[in-house]
Amino acid sequence: MRATLMYAAGDVRTETVPDPTLERPTDAVVRITTSCICGSDLWPYASMPASDGPARMGHEFLGVVEEVGAEVTTVRPGDFVVAPFAYSDGTCALCREGLQTSCVYGGFWDEPGQQGGQAEAIRVPLADGTLAKLPGGTDTALAPSLLTLSDVFGTGYHAAVQGRVEPGKTVAVVGDGAVGLLAVASAKLLGAERIVLMGRHTTRTDLGVEFGATDVVAERGEEGIERVRELTGGEGAHVVLEAVGARPAYDQALGIVRPGGTISRVGVPQYEDAPVGFGSLFGPNVTLTGGPAPTRAYIETLLPHVLDGTVDPGKVFDRTVALDGVPDGYRAMADREALKVLVTP
Amino acid sequence: MRATLMYAAGDVRTETVPDPTLERPTDAVVRITTSCICGSDLWPYASMPASDGPARMGHEFLGVVEEVGAEVTTVRPGDFVVAPFAYSDGTCALCREGLQTSCVYGGFWDEPGQQGGQAEAIRVPLADGTLAKLPGGTDTALAPSLLTLSDVFGTGYHAAVQGRVEPGKTVAVVGDGAVGLLAVASAKLLGAERIVLMGRHTTRTDLGVEFGATDVVAERGEEGIERVRELTGGEGAHVVLEAVGARPAYDQALGIVRPGGTISRVGVPQYEDAPVGFGSLFGPNVTLTGGPAPTRAYIETLLPHVLDGTVDPGKVFDRTVALDGVPDGYRAMADREALKVLVTP
Repeated sequence: MRATLMYAAGDVRTETVPDPTLERPTDAVVRITTSCICGSDLWPYASMPASDGPARMGHEFLGVVEEVGAEVTTVRPGDFVVAPFAYSDGTCALCREGLQTSCVYGGFWDEPGQQGGQAEAIRVPLADGTLAKLPGGTDTALAPSLLTLSDVFGTGYHAAVQGRVEPGKTVAVVGDGAVGLLAVASAKLLGAERIVLMGRHTTRTDLGVEFGATDVVAERGEEGIERVRELTGGEGAHVVLEAVGARPAYDQALGIVRPGGTISRVGVPQYEDAPVGFGSLFGPNVTLTGGPAPTRAYIETLLPHVLDGTVDPGKVFDRTVALDGVPDGYRAMADREALKVLVTP
Repeated sequence: MRATLMYAAGDVRTETVPDPTLERPTDAVVRITTSCICGSDLWPYASMPASDGPARMGHEFLGVVEEVGAEVTTVRPGDFVVAPFAYSDGTCALCREGLQTSCVYGGFWDEPGQQGGQAEAIRVPLADGTLAKLPGGTDTALAPSLLTLSDVFGTGYHAAVQGRVEPGKTVAVVGDGAVGLLAVASAKLLGAERIVLMGRHTTRTDLGVEFGATDVVAERGEEGIERVRELTGGEGAHVVLEAVGARPAYDQALGIVRPGGTISRVGVPQYEDAPVGFGSLFGPNVTLTGGPAPTRAYIETLLPHVLDGTVDPGKVFDRTVALDGVPDGYRAMADREALKVLVTP
């Protein structure tokens, strides 16, 4: 079959690889109907050394179950399914608490031995815990929106849930990528009174306004901080949803959070150390939370909103490519030509 | 009157200073009946340069109101009162939300122009917001326990509240100082199922057990982390209350917190940067919270527990000195001879 491999920064290829097969009795093989390129794929695309490649790419997909192992009980061949960006057994203590990204038996698709979603098919480990059945058929016009349950919608929602967004709160969102925009939509779902979106790509922030942003701040750095403070009567936002992962986004968040407020991060941090002392988090009693979203935990919560059209998260996709077009899709996202690229094998 | 001044690290003196007077219509003058030395006073005692001195010391006191300014309405001369370690107006948006340490008009006793509690009397700014009336007279045997409402009990309680300790949770407390021990008592008040106290001074950890610790871990560093992990079935604690403020305590907390858990800090951080990235907080979805405790917010909640004897927080005091004995009190606490020193002017 055809699959996407990254050989090094900037070097993505569509190649022929062996078809996936069942390796364990808890596996399923899924024929992929829709997948996509993630903003987080751009981090290795910018910096991966050749020694780490070639790596199978893609961690978001919809598909049809083709074959299941002897121990799989919750999905059958023919089922239309969505997979979250982490696989998990669904039964360990952490899974039961809804933290599937820390599953004792689970992991991520980019780990050695795993396969990628930007491909024609994939072996899914721990299929019972990982896959969620979807209603309807693969021909649904909702496919792009359903695919966001894999990662970007669930990740934006995780930011808002961890930040304890609730009615009456002022929320600021740092980043106008797909996750930032769906963090806006999630903050609205949770009842935020005011949602300030920080981003400078008008086509993106326009979509953010459609998703529920009440204000847009295009300025960055000190100027952006000033602007958010002005908009919030000098106080700052109760909750800051940080959907970038770069260090300047962390500093931005520190600058605009209200005393006693929360910074909730879902952008994968590209830094390890950062200020947490009296002059940053501690003095004003600011809470820092977030992490990789256990999107598996949110599928059942968010699916009804997608099905009834309350939210149309599929709007974050502004380009579609076939598998052979994936390398150009990476380029287009890296060049900020495309917000998020859908892949239809 | 007599008051305590710190001239530099290791140099504390009891000296004669001018009597306090009303400076603003919102001030009160309080005759101090009981005060104490704080674990946080030991940070400047270890490192304050002479250029920062002489500084008036002490931020915890009980006393009797002697005089009030024209605009003070909630306390009258003769009232027995307790003051938190931060003064605040009690009416700004942040005070109304219970975050008096971030009061727009407030501040801390060690700021320029303010006076200290290790003295015979003190000028209290914003008396209406700052002072809390206490029942009974100054001769009460409960004075040491009431005094802990100024700081250490409220601070331990803040750690537990911010960490969202609740029934069924496993809590680990890093630090066996007065705040750590009262964080244990607070975790018990909030219903924690298991409370692991990390500390290596037996007389202190014994008091911790009396306050509710179910396990004591004397080991530190990697060994201490291993021990806590063993005690928690390999998982770590749901909530870690960090009551030290030194960087190794932060690292300890990272090592023993469960995925999805919370580190709540109330030890004043003696560092600014620390790990917060994928390998520390982000990957396991750990929340970092805490800060200077708005102890004013907790006085009404904790007072009944002190009055009815549910908790006897005054047990953290193991030595009493008069004002002239304060310099030796600092030495005794710094040498770990005394846990916490009561001062009776």
